[in-house]
Amino acid sequence: MSVGVKVFAPASVANLACGYDILGLAIDGPGDEIIAKQVDKAGVVISKISGAKGKLPYEVEKNTAGTAAKKLLEFLGEDKFGIDIEIHKRMPFGSGLGSSAASACAAVMAVNEVLKRPLTRRELLPFAVLGEQVADGAYHADNVAPSLMGGIIFIRSNKELDVHRVPVPKGLYVSVIYPHVKVLTKDSRGILGDMLKLDQHIEQSGNLGGLILGLYNSNFDLIGRSLRDVIIEPQRAQLIPGFFQVQEAALKAGALGCSISGAGPSIFALSANNLIAENIGVAMQKVFQDLKIKSDLFVSEINQTGTYLL
Amino acid sequence: MSVGVKVFAPASVANLACGYDILGLAIDGPGDEIIAKQVDKAGVVISKISGAKGKLPYEVEKNTAGTAAKKLLEFLGEDKFGIDIEIHKRMPFGSGLGSSAASACAAVMAVNEVLKRPLTRRELLPFAVLGEQVADGAYHADNVAPSLMGGIIFIRSNKELDVHRVPVPKGLYVSVIYPHVKVLTKDSRGILGDMLKLDQHIEQSGNLGGLILGLYNSNFDLIGRSLRDVIIEPQRAQLIPGFFQVQEAALKAGALGCSISGAGPSIFALSANNLIAENIGVAMQKVFQDLKIKSDLFVSEINQTGTYLL
Repeated sequence: MSVGVKVFAPASVANLACGYDILGLAIDGPGDEIIAKQVDKAGVVISKISGAKGKLPYEVEKNTAGTAAKKLLEFLGEDKFGIDIEIHKRMPFGSGLGSSAASACAAVMAVNEVLKRPLTRRELLPFAVLGEQVADGAYHADNVAPSLMGGIIFIRSNKELDVHRVPVPKGLYVSVIYPHVKVLTKDSRGILGDMLKLDQHIEQSGNLGGLILGLYNSNFDLIGRSLRDVIIEPQRAQLIPGFFQVQEAALKAGALGCSISGAGPSIFALSANNLIAENIGVAMQKVFQDLKIKSDLFVSEINQTGTYLL
Repeated sequence: MSVGVKVFAPASVANLACGYDILGLAIDGPGDEIIAKQVDKAGVVISKISGAKGKLPYEVEKNTAGTAAKKLLEFLGEDKFGIDIEIHKRMPFGSGLGSSAASACAAVMAVNEVLKRPLTRRELLPFAVLGEQVADGAYHADNVAPSLMGGIIFIRSNKELDVHRVPVPKGLYVSVIYPHVKVLTKDSRGILGDMLKLDQHIEQSGNLGGLILGLYNSNFDLIGRSLRDVIIEPQRAQLIPGFFQVQEAALKAGALGCSISGAGPSIFALSANNLIAENIGVAMQKVFQDLKIKSDLFVSEINQTGTYLL
């Protein structure tokens, strides 16, 4: 048995109000740690899972990290290679913060390291996406790509994994609050209508373009005007008790914008410096306190590192 | 009677495949010339119109240039000022090349010059949009803003006229062909369904973001992948005989992308240099020749000047 490698992948915020399925960013702090080592017996085995309250499956095909590792080994023609994986979850899951994505990202980088790095970070992306698909059902990279590569990532096409880095303005902070209420990704997707109005499309597209231009030009006012979701948020907000109060509190505290993180129930807000971000966090947490809902708060810069070897 | 000023406003291409109502660019060559002079009698009068085959109204309230001039004078509190306008159309109208917009842009700049420039170019925008609305029915700036300000313009919100300049990569050329078939803007709008699929929205948004990122990074491959319209073009193509043949010919000749210019019937293609742009133009024109449809071809760089004093 080899010494093994330890890899950390960060949590992430997908959608960013106006970029449903095509925008995401990585945050500092919460994430998943994976330890991988070579073992004699061929195939992937998950030997330990901690921090997930016993709710993550050890069965490789049902586990995002296991599946990501397996798909990567298959691609490399290393079917006879043996890998032992430990998953240490250092973030809430089912929270809308890309927990499945973090597991998959950490797994592919860990396996790649054990194999002496046959692929680049970018080349690992499809296998992490395949891993996350086990939990989410959909083949999309809006959590996986930022968790793996860091920063703010725009995805022209999930099918083609046509991913692009968007510049991060100096000072941009994100406040994320995870209220302890249960929202399943599949419910959160199921609630969405298949159709929308052309006017909604035009308005949302305008905001998406505005957000990208605002990020390019460090134009915080434009970022603020653009962080609006007229399609998804109105449908999903009902799944999160107190959502509109939290949003109002965040905006009053100086947020550029505030919306649902991924499929929820976490809520994120962007702001122009760390003190505003702290104030927003306190304001959001106060709302949930008043509603007698426990919550976890994460305040961070945009994580520019992505997944890394510890 | 004063000496008068002469102003030229260029034609423009709106929508750009994936930016319905929110993207447009100005082209070199065709456009509208307006001569304005102060006269004693209060109000706006249109004394001459040339190049429009007698089809443009002299009645100020029904004329985009007249209305734009009138709205501007009203805003400035110059209701008693007298302005005489001549309109010399040096481009086809009803062509999807922003003919109404060019008239309105030239008119507001001409009036502003006669009044010794009380407003900046940007401040003239709302009055040009109000002028164009007379012809188009809608308050939107996707032709007016590029015609007035030049370049490639992104509009976050037409209602708020939240307009932004997108960088133009060196070498970007546009080939535009106007086939002599009649498509009314109102028919072209009327044909569009009110609703679209969420999947179409995601795909189109991905392409919009891809196009903006491609323009920022001078990434011609990304621009090419992004110049696709899965919402509007499939509905409007039927109004233009031979559209798909022209599109195919343009792409074969090296176009990055090819779609309908504004409400049509003009068709535009973007390319990475002037020789490809010429080749595309020849290829597109050949298709219409074979279909026995007369056409006008315009090949140009992106016009960075916008409306200007002659």
